[in-house]
Amino acid sequence: MSWASIDLNADLGEGFGRWRLTDDERLLSVVTSANVACGFHAGDAATMRRVCALAAEREVRIGAQVSYRDLAGFGRRAMDVPADELAAEVAYQIGALQVFARAAGARVSYVKPHGALYNRVVHDEEQARAVVDGVLLTGERLPLLGLPGSRLHRAADKAGLPVVTEAFADRAYTADGTLVPRSQEGAVVHDPEAVVERSVSMARFGVVTSHCGRSVPVRARSLCLHGDTPGAVDLARRVRARLEATGVRVEAFA
Amino acid sequence: MSWASIDLNADLGEGFGRWRLTDDERLLSVVTSANVACGFHAGDAATMRRVCALAAEREVRIGAQVSYRDLAGFGRRAMDVPADELAAEVAYQIGALQVFARAAGARVSYVKPHGALYNRVVHDEEQARAVVDGVLLTGERLPLLGLPGSRLHRAADKAGLPVVTEAFADRAYTADGTLVPRSQEGAVVHDPEAVVERSVSMARFGVVTSHCGRSVPVRARSLCLHGDTPGAVDLARRVRARLEATGVRVEAFA
Amino acid sequence: MSWASIDLNADLGEGFGRWRLTDDERLLSVVTSANVACGFHAGDAATMRRVCALAAEREVRIGAQVSYRDLAGFGRRAMDVPADELAAEVAYQIGALQVFARAAGARVSYVKPHGALYNRVVHDEEQARAVVDGVLLTGERLPLLGLPGSRLHRAADKAGLPVVTEAFADRAYTADGTLVPRSQEGAVVHDPEAVVERSVSMARFGVVTSHCGRSVPVRARSLCLHGDTPGAVDLARRVRARLEATGVRVEAFA
Amino acid sequence: MSWASIDLNADLGEGFGRWRLTDDERLLSVVTSANVACGFHAGDAATMRRVCALAAEREVRIGAQVSYRDLAGFGRRAMDVPADELAAEVAYQIGALQVFARAAGARVSYVKPHGALYNRVVHDEEQARAVVDGVLLTGERLPLLGLPGSRLHRAADKAGLPVVTEAFADRAYTADGTLVPRSQEGAVVHDPEAVVERSVSMARFGVVTSHCGRSVPVRARSLCLHGDTPGAVDLARRVRARLEATGVRVEAFA
Repeated sequence: MSWASIDLNADLGEGFGRWRLTDDERLLSVVTSANVACGFHAGDAATMRRVCALAAEREVRIGAQVSYRDLAGFGRRAMDVPADELAAEVAYQIGALQVFARAAGARVSYVKPHGALYNRVVHDEEQARAVVDGVLLTGERLPLLGLPGSRLHRAADKAGLPVVTEAFADRAYTADGTLVPRSQEGAVVHDPEAVVERSVSMARFGVVTSHCGRSVPVRARSLCLHGDTPGAVDLARRVRARLEATGVRVEAFA
Repeated sequence: MSWASIDLNADLGEGFGRWRLTDDERLLSVVTSANVACGFHAGDAATMRRVCALAAEREVRIGAQVSYRDLAGFGRRAMDVPADELAAEVAYQIGALQVFARAAGARVSYVKPHGALYNRVVHDEEQARAVVDGVLLTGERLPLLGLPGSRLHRAADKAGLPVVTEAFADRAYTADGTLVPRSQEGAVVHDPEAVVERSVSMARFGVVTSHCGRSVPVRARSLCLHGDTPGAVDLARRVRARLEATGVRVEAFA
Repeated sequence: MSWASIDLNADLGEGFGRWRLTDDERLLSVVTSANVACGFHAGDAATMRRVCALAAEREVRIGAQVSYRDLAGFGRRAMDVPADELAAEVAYQIGALQVFARAAGARVSYVKPHGALYNRVVHDEEQARAVVDGVLLTGERLPLLGLPGSRLHRAADKAGLPVVTEAFADRAYTADGTLVPRSQEGAVVHDPEAVVERSVSMARFGVVTSHCGRSVPVRARSLCLHGDTPGAVDLARRVRARLEATGVRVEAFA
Repeated sequence: MSWASIDLNADLGEGFGRWRLTDDERLLSVVTSANVACGFHAGDAATMRRVCALAAEREVRIGAQVSYRDLAGFGRRAMDVPADELAAEVAYQIGALQVFARAAGARVSYVKPHGALYNRVVHDEEQARAVVDGVLLTGERLPLLGLPGSRLHRAADKAGLPVVTEAFADRAYTADGTLVPRSQEGAVVHDPEAVVERSVSMARFGVVTSHCGRSVPVRARSLCLHGDTPGAVDLARRVRARLEATGVRVEAFA
């Protein structure tokens, strides 16, 4: 299996008030899709406006990075949010971002859950459906960016919403093609060259070498790059450059 | 001067999570315009969704009641928010509410500042312009509900946004036609019958008796009713009934 | 088994800013222990101060009702908070309350987890230990109010902290002496007379009739009364009156 | 006028959750007094605990850096908080910090308002008294760190609380010895060597050269260093080294 093209997505606008985390300006020169924080785990209104304007200027696609309401925990603490509350909170965040996307002459064109919510909707059917319900509330058929085979994607399928699969070049995979949990040793690939090579392998051939050495298929229309660590932007650039050098078209998903 | 018709507006959805304040369901059977809290001083996402659905069902117009970000102070503590932050925060709130209005088959059709922000933009030009800028960010020409002669209305005029004037039947007016500050004795009219009579006087003749006994003109396309005190809904009903009994059409502003 | 005396505890100060929930003043004339909200699920600083002053005046014991950081969910949404964060958050809340207790000439003399945290530490060892660690950070040997047999009580035992057992007169019990989950029918006892009788049975004989009709032992040094529903205070008064009429001393635990 | 010794204070623990701002560890090797954020403008519980532990280890004095409740604005937006609410909020923050100071074997030994509150209590008598009232609620005679001649210091004097004067080596002063407002050009001294020299001049001789070139007296028992900009810690080290090289004892105020 081989992809003619790949999307590169990264989390952006993950500051709040005085705090900054992501190097939004530089990342926007690398990625093709920007997962913009919407105020629940990060992202104040002025930051959202600024990031949308920058993204639109660079013709980077804008997505709503929706989260549990948890600034203190940066959305990384799983929460048992009742389905109707979660759906409403997802819709609220998308709506807030839509204003700034439109003001920049663009639009919110996909949704990606953040942090603990992202992990939860891989297997939690109720919350997966709640996220999908939140998207449906907006009245737009926004694609959901997530892991292939996740409950989120199944719920989206059922509801008639498009899905976009993603993979992580800096995460180890099991022989089943699932992510090695962060709690296990070797879960994160730290060697930059390895990350670059895995990106190319995923984008060109749809395969990656698992942590036990087997080639496993990884369906991914988008690769997730990280932007919140030192050297992250440089690595992202290397990934993009190598992809392009090997003939992969780096472009937003359709 | 006489108005053929009057709009009745009230603050709604002013709960948060477990807390309730306004009797949304009953108020929606009285008013023609619902100022829905958008999450900054009150109004969680699930409440916003519910109130929008109820309002749409009853064909009550939905407005965004935008506020300073101040849950602990219920938006009643004036804040020196820089203009760009305030504009973005206003847009954020409107965008969030738009999702729920649209999901209910309706739309956000006006904007009314809440509490300390409402009072501040009567005289503060910078914040008035910031609120208007926030509305402009939405790309829609939403009318601004507020006091006649306020800086907010002047800023809206300048920006080409419509304005809707409002008056308060339960507040005392000076001979200049401005509100007697709440800090002064007699600022609030407590006698229900007086409130009802003042409503009729304002709606039919555009005048009210000032606290010093003079008839003063009060331009108002909308009357603000309060819904957060015991007996408030009953009073609101009496006001509406008397208005209709005296031949005033109670209907949302155009 | 029979208790000469029983403590009555209730949640208090569960407002926030403009919102009120509990009828603090009236409840304080009934209970002997006040679980005061500390700002994470409810309870702004001014409310905490006021409730502590009222409690001290009435010689009602003050306890810290600690919670997940979740105003929007009123602390009712379970959260996977890492142990070190949870311990620090518990200590933070106790410290904040201590100021107001001391200012009122009293002290914080116990700790009770709230809502989802309360339920979680019944069975979750890690969070139970984190709550205990939070209490230990204060340097005071504060008793932990909770369910007999809970992980919280085991963790407290291990750490050398006192425990105080509580029971719920308005909740159904299984034959094992555990609470019937709220999700099951009949979980809550609505008949006031039944609640009163169960209170007496628990306080005098340490037994309660389970939902399947068997007498089961319920160890409880304190009965939890609810104050956030209409009629709750009246019911609390009836419970206290009947307890006293049947010879039970209503007094704070030692 | 010459001081035998000077205190160096800096804001610390100004992160929140995932966000960091101040280089706490390195700053604590320079300063003698740590203004620890208490959760209202910055400073989650785990960070407060960590900073208190580090400060105690290095024998750096711990102070409560109290603020308006404004995470989104980092406490830099002036707020009209009613006096009783402000007093309670100040006490709340101090109480929360006291837990972590005590847990580290230390204590909170002074209070310094942050940001917009700091500026407001220079001239606003009501808020100045509210801050003092908040300190009085703690029952401890904690000194208030602030500008000489400020309303805060007058209110503290009146209430019998000690005051500690501070000066800013990187801020321009008027001929009256007050700070040149940040809105004016030249308000901030950017040249590191100039900052170092002004520190020595203030500490040794109690004078500084005003922005119009005159020597003006500046009473200061403590110098405020900044830690939130690149190079800030290095500059702080240079200041301390030069002070010590010129015979000034760098030590916490008594």
